[in-house]
Amino acid sequence: MKIKAAAVKDLRNIVGDIAERMARETDRGRVACYIPELARVDLNQFGIAVVLADGTEMAAGDAEVPFSIQSISKVFTLTLALGRVGDALWDRVGREPSGNPFNSIVQLEADNGIPRNPFINAGAIVVTDVLLAGHEPRETIGEILRFMRHVTNDDGIRIDPEVARSEERTGFRNAALANFIRAANNLHHAPERTLGVYFHHCAIAMTCKQLAMAGRFLAFGGHLGVDGPQIVSAARARRINALMLTCGHYDGSGDFAFQVGLPGKSGVGGGILTIVPDIAVIAVWSPGLNAVGNSQLATRALKILSDRTGWSIFGEN
Amino acid sequence: MKIKAAAVKDLRNIVGDIAERMARETDRGRVACYIPELARVDLNQFGIAVVLADGTEMAAGDAEVPFSIQSISKVFTLTLALGRVGDALWDRVGREPSGNPFNSIVQLEADNGIPRNPFINAGAIVVTDVLLAGHEPRETIGEILRFMRHVTNDDGIRIDPEVARSEERTGFRNAALANFIRAANNLHHAPERTLGVYFHHCAIAMTCKQLAMAGRFLAFGGHLGVDGPQIVSAARARRINALMLTCGHYDGSGDFAFQVGLPGKSGVGGGILTIVPDIAVIAVWSPGLNAVGNSQLATRALKILSDRTGWSIFGEN
Amino acid sequence: MKIKAAAVKDLRNIVGDIAERMARETDRGRVACYIPELARVDLNQFGIAVVLADGTEMAAGDAEVPFSIQSISKVFTLTLALGRVGDALWDRVGREPSGNPFNSIVQLEADNGIPRNPFINAGAIVVTDVLLAGHEPRETIGEILRFMRHVTNDDGIRIDPEVARSEERTGFRNAALANFIRAANNLHHAPERTLGVYFHHCAIAMTCKQLAMAGRFLAFGGHLGVDGPQIVSAARARRINALMLTCGHYDGSGDFAFQVGLPGKSGVGGGILTIVPDIAVIAVWSPGLNAVGNSQLATRALKILSDRTGWSIFGEN
Amino acid sequence: MKIKAAAVKDLRNIVGDIAERMARETDRGRVACYIPELARVDLNQFGIAVVLADGTEMAAGDAEVPFSIQSISKVFTLTLALGRVGDALWDRVGREPSGNPFNSIVQLEADNGIPRNPFINAGAIVVTDVLLAGHEPRETIGEILRFMRHVTNDDGIRIDPEVARSEERTGFRNAALANFIRAANNLHHAPERTLGVYFHHCAIAMTCKQLAMAGRFLAFGGHLGVDGPQIVSAARARRINALMLTCGHYDGSGDFAFQVGLPGKSGVGGGILTIVPDIAVIAVWSPGLNAVGNSQLATRALKILSDRTGWSIFGEN
Repeated sequence: MKIKAAAVKDLRNIVGDIAERMARETDRGRVACYIPELARVDLNQFGIAVVLADGTEMAAGDAEVPFSIQSISKVFTLTLALGRVGDALWDRVGREPSGNPFNSIVQLEADNGIPRNPFINAGAIVVTDVLLAGHEPRETIGEILRFMRHVTNDDGIRIDPEVARSEERTGFRNAALANFIRAANNLHHAPERTLGVYFHHCAIAMTCKQLAMAGRFLAFGGHLGVDGPQIVSAARARRINALMLTCGHYDGSGDFAFQVGLPGKSGVGGGILTIVPDIAVIAVWSPGLNAVGNSQLATRALKILSDRTGWSIFGEN
Repeated sequence: MKIKAAAVKDLRNIVGDIAERMARETDRGRVACYIPELARVDLNQFGIAVVLADGTEMAAGDAEVPFSIQSISKVFTLTLALGRVGDALWDRVGREPSGNPFNSIVQLEADNGIPRNPFINAGAIVVTDVLLAGHEPRETIGEILRFMRHVTNDDGIRIDPEVARSEERTGFRNAALANFIRAANNLHHAPERTLGVYFHHCAIAMTCKQLAMAGRFLAFGGHLGVDGPQIVSAARARRINALMLTCGHYDGSGDFAFQVGLPGKSGVGGGILTIVPDIAVIAVWSPGLNAVGNSQLATRALKILSDRTGWSIFGEN
Repeated sequence: MKIKAAAVKDLRNIVGDIAERMARETDRGRVACYIPELARVDLNQFGIAVVLADGTEMAAGDAEVPFSIQSISKVFTLTLALGRVGDALWDRVGREPSGNPFNSIVQLEADNGIPRNPFINAGAIVVTDVLLAGHEPRETIGEILRFMRHVTNDDGIRIDPEVARSEERTGFRNAALANFIRAANNLHHAPERTLGVYFHHCAIAMTCKQLAMAGRFLAFGGHLGVDGPQIVSAARARRINALMLTCGHYDGSGDFAFQVGLPGKSGVGGGILTIVPDIAVIAVWSPGLNAVGNSQLATRALKILSDRTGWSIFGEN
Repeated sequence: MKIKAAAVKDLRNIVGDIAERMARETDRGRVACYIPELARVDLNQFGIAVVLADGTEMAAGDAEVPFSIQSISKVFTLTLALGRVGDALWDRVGREPSGNPFNSIVQLEADNGIPRNPFINAGAIVVTDVLLAGHEPRETIGEILRFMRHVTNDDGIRIDPEVARSEERTGFRNAALANFIRAANNLHHAPERTLGVYFHHCAIAMTCKQLAMAGRFLAFGGHLGVDGPQIVSAARARRINALMLTCGHYDGSGDFAFQVGLPGKSGVGGGILTIVPDIAVIAVWSPGLNAVGNSQLATRALKILSDRTGWSIFGEN
């Protein structure tokens, strides 16, 4: 573990500095406009929370404001699906970066309905379909929610029903993907059933503090903190981290790895969950997005944090 | 630094075990067939070399047999080009995984002649073109060779002229890429001049031992070993590692990150250069390739090594 | 008018000969398998009907057996939509051959939801959406059916409800297209409403004799026979013929023009409606399809008919 | 034959009217800019020539000014190649519209180096490669030129060496295509040799009058005028006309068929050769191009001519 007692104080300062600096930023990106509910979120928000292996927490800014985690939920549904079917999952979804925007359908046609990875929408829909096997949509939504409450140790986690409805009403592009995958026999339920679950888990609302807690099992070898219970194997946690690094930011994944150097998963609600293997979990949120659909200020904050801590997995300072 | 004295002995055993095990493998993949010279290489070879931060070396198998490094050379030309023009390079080439085979031309048409990253052929041709600015092809080839000799501290590194000629005679796909990029005004020299340099640096022959030495600056913060001279900044070394992780194995990059969890660059000659940031450089070679064009046994060996050492950058065992 | 009294007799012989020859063919292609109802049709059927400008009819084989006209219905919905909105239709759908299979979604992504032409599925769905404006699905289906009955002068034309239901249950690929177009704001109704109408007009059942009657307005300057009422302008009839020539056979349009030399529209039910401008309408049907999804024997029959009559629009014999 | 003595006078008036009207047009498109020689041509030119079956000629405007026929030459090289190898040509090039711009390379990758049709650049390069078999480039260029002189009955036809050189110096996109096809083993000569011939036949200079004469064999069943010698079969002439209709205007082929209703082949020099089967040949030229690369005024002129004569192959007025 690289963080010593003295360093924790430094780290608190860094986190505070970043929140102050981001509060002053004027170029904050643009809120996602294709989900009406998200378009109404106030752009002038920024939150950050860090959880270390020993449970030390630090946070700054709007770290206790709930936001829609959107695609970040895909990390957790992937974890559940791997727990359910193991490596058989990889028969239905690939593990390669897509080289296309998050909602592209072109690749699906070329690859006969096998999505390139579990973090593009098409892949996450297949993952959700795996979770639905043998269950009613409501049960599967319940299972995902229970998992989120377990990993955060917080029974307050909930789904925002307005956001879920908003997505169901306007999610035509996702409906196109689901129907296409179904036509290729890679969806085992009626598209609207699988999408119902998908839209609900994307609509989970969490604060930065909660999200940082939720990511502990990925940072700490599958454990909920170094002394906590192990919910997945260390090998599985590593592999999910690898997928976050290569595929976690859609068509900006290469750039995030290049600039920040840490596994991360972004959502169009403006959140980014970032893992510093064996050291920390970072959750950052700011609703304005950049051109490729990732939070502009959260990305910038993570670059500063990585530079100042030397936490990049690609080498020390 | 995670490697202690006792561990070095363990590591020697692991390396030796792997070489023995790979020698016995019967499913060895297939040699690259599109470059006639490479098609003649004996499939029954396997070499591995590891260099640690303090200069400790260990090797096994055919670690002193020279092989054609092919695309691994792209890591070194990228380093040189970044030294020459800095971040201006990124105006001419992207940093995202391609989601397409190494020699695809489709992406170029969609992106107006800007290759997706410097490790697909199109991107490496642009990088070579950057190095050619203001020089004769022969001078640029000389500069690349001098750099390779410098980073390995070995004046014996040479280009295999038969391989270079073989590629020049048969490299129509690369000629298509170069001409396409030229038509999009992203190549500044006559395609045959840039390709001449490109084919020559791909034809550099090295042993596993030499290649492991050549990768030290990437593993050790830009230094040639922990106490050696610094040839690039730590930040640049990290970023090149990040590119190797996301883009280093063509359309198998995601899978290599998933299975091995380390930055690496493969070549169709069967070599893979792998970086364990702050800890080690690993060079592995076996000429048989898998379906996506990466060495089958080198990939397998690296997975075993990563599992047994806990060197994955995505978390400890 | 090129057909004289004597020639009519010759023509009857040609039509009879073709039917006999096709009855003996053993290589009959394969029935469409993706619509369960169609997969049950007996492969050993072949019908042909020809209607001349003066109303002379000739037919042979199974010319009075109803079959599912499927995509041939797109010619008639296009005619109705042009009548409804005129050239404004071309803001929502293109007029170029697609160079892709009939149900490809790739082109839609490249062209922002504007289908390339009204005869690929995506384009026909948009055409149907135009017809739905201001109406209930049931009313629009009724309007289409009344038009078909009017142009054939036959009140017996009906929709096969089994086929319509079969398509609704299994039409996931079309649902993907409709949802994709809706996401691009080029569909004005809920996808399932537009698709409901689309699946019903594709399920219209007609005989060769009825279909030949239905095509008269295209062959005879917009008139139902030379002395009949005019239902569209001559210019519009010509333009629909042009679209049939360039786009009427999906990815086999170029080949049909090359081999047969006449405007035509095929359907996966095995029918082909063919226009000989100013001279005749030809309807041919045989349920076995070739590799690109057009009736194998109907195509062959039309090639023989074109060769023997010299009816190609590209020059006399 | 639809043209009577009286009509010839009408036709002369129509042709004259069109030339006058086009002379006054202010929106004349833009000259091709990617071949430096062509970019210098005066935009204020317009010529038209019509040749009837009996040899009657009529012309107006700049009908005797030579221009670079560019892609129109592909019609003649196709004719020669079919004469050389017959239907075996279709093993190396398809007959379907491409749905992509004239110089797209995407389709080639999807179809393993088989160009979609002989009128896109890739296809025409393969056709040229067929003509080169067993010959030196100079001999093949000579053969093509002799054919052009024969079909026009005019020994003055020549190649513009400035244009040929200009294209050789700047034809990187075509070099990309040729190298790509070679890599797929569908080019039998060194790319630069095939391209040398290709650039030369594209650089043939002709006047509208000459071009109209050259197209007679396509309009008149393979004959050079109704009583002239037959140089190809009627069936072959028809089939070439069909290809012109479906593929003759790149990505604007569907629109040309829709608007004009006649087989035609355009070139970036601003010429369009148009066939009225059994009736006439029309050559029109004006150097300004529209958005898809076809002459803006020549297209407009042909639409007027088709409307006023009722010559559309898709039905009479």
